Amino acid sequence: MKISAEFMRRVAEAAAAETLPRFRGRGSVSNKLSAGFDPVTEADQRAEQAIRAVIREEYPDHGILGEEFGPENAASSHIWVIDPIDGTRSFISGVPLWGTLVGLTVDGDAVAGMMSQPFIGELFRADSGGTFYEGPGGARKLATRKRDALAEATLCTTTPALFLGGRRESYNRLEAAIQLSRYGTDCYAYAMLAAGHIDLVVEVGLQAYDIVALIPIIERAGGKITNWDGGPAENGGEIVAAGSPKLHDAALELLHKS
Amino acid sequence: MKISAEFMRRVAEAAAAETLPRFRGRGSVSNKLSAGFDPVTEADQRAEQAIRAVIREEYPDHGILGEEFGPENAASSHIWVIDPIDGTRSFISGVPLWGTLVGLTVDGDAVAGMMSQPFIGELFRADSGGTFYEGPGGARKLATRKRDALAEATLCTTTPALFLGGRRESYNRLEAAIQLSRYGTDCYAYAMLAAGHIDLVVEVGLQAYDIVALIPIIERAGGKITNWDGGPAENGGEIVAAGSPKLHDAALELLHKS
Repeated sequence: MKISAEFMRRVAEAAAAETLPRFRGRGSVSNKLSAGFDPVTEADQRAEQAIRAVIREEYPDHGILGEEFGPENAASSHIWVIDPIDGTRSFISGVPLWGTLVGLTVDGDAVAGMMSQPFIGELFRADSGGTFYEGPGGARKLATRKRDALAEATLCTTTPALFLGGRRESYNRLEAAIQLSRYGTDCYAYAMLAAGHIDLVVEVGLQAYDIVALIPIIERAGGKITNWDGGPAENGGEIVAAGSPKLHDAALELLHKS
Repeated sequence: MKISAEFMRRVAEAAAAETLPRFRGRGSVSNKLSAGFDPVTEADQRAEQAIRAVIREEYPDHGILGEEFGPENAASSHIWVIDPIDGTRSFISGVPLWGTLVGLTVDGDAVAGMMSQPFIGELFRADSGGTFYEGPGGARKLATRKRDALAEATLCTTTPALFLGGRRESYNRLEAAIQLSRYGTDCYAYAMLAAGHIDLVVEVGLQAYDIVALIPIIERAGGKITNWDGGPAENGGEIVAAGSPKLHDAALELLHKS
């Protein structure tokens, strides 16, 4: 499906008007879960409301699924999936690697998406017309780099601590096989994968809204993204994204080796 | 010592002219150490030459110590200490958390310094006149936040994998006591500490050029930075930086608990 660049920019700007004034500022931070530490800011909630308003105006028949406020018009074949601030831990630490994620599914398949980092002024977006970047480095098409060998790959993940039980062994096996690993990058890692700066992202415990927007950006840039069973990534869970199908195969094989 | 904002901006711009065109680009990457993975780019070397030229012109009697090209005029009481790209792993991964570090020591004490992140357009700088920020969030004075309790602290480090032997146990003890930990932030973590967004940075294996520029930025913002023995941080090694002296004491105590 074709989604205009102008519409995606409008969504990004509406969200930024709520997130930016509260980044590095004094927005209230509450704990979403009483156990553990899952910060969610006023910015998160207001940005989602702003994004919903822009979508409703342009596509009144479409459904919306967001992190903060749940589903609306859920029977529609076209569902927008929103994470107003992916990387809330970066957000509250002043680190501009968080992003606003907005993706579109048609009959369950992710067909368009955007990731916006407004403090840096970057927009990564994809639809049936391709995948594009706008930011301080100029505007251009996105394309993954093709490193097929694990031994040459740079891998990103949120933190190894999220891999529990046998998943930790799988992750450690993969990390031992690649060249360089980086942590704490959240959605920014997927953007760097699509832009050809890194090669692999491996994560567990994702929600649909963490990943739907990023799937078209990676696929249209030449990458491959699935769950750990090789199935669709749209529902989140355990995710492997790679810059090339060969590297994706190699990573999946190593994760499942026993 | 007073160092003009204009001079620091000139240093930052000279470095940026060499780093920015090679960030996310095609600059050659070689391995500095044949064993292990220590990437160093053409950008690193050219930026250091550019920085040295600006310093030589303004302060011809001062000494210079850089990561890439070694000491010049080393007998001077005033020594500039340069890391043209701190966070080369971020740099080669497309992640804009690397920085250009330039600090000044007088008789061994760090008295002025700057950290520049030119892709985002940020400059953190300090001298005897105070510590200041310029960037997308506007210009302002920097000040740490005062969270004295470990249980409320956000901690940054490059990666736990760098802590070897007993140092790993010390680090794990500290990580278990704090609220939130983040990895992979390099010099950006110290800047976020000075700006009041995080509370602790704990690292090992630093060189003088990794830390000298950051000491005045943290101290003038109200923070405390020493080595793990409570001594001066100027020589690098094992470093603890905190937003408040009380939190610094608490972190040191826990690191040395046995």
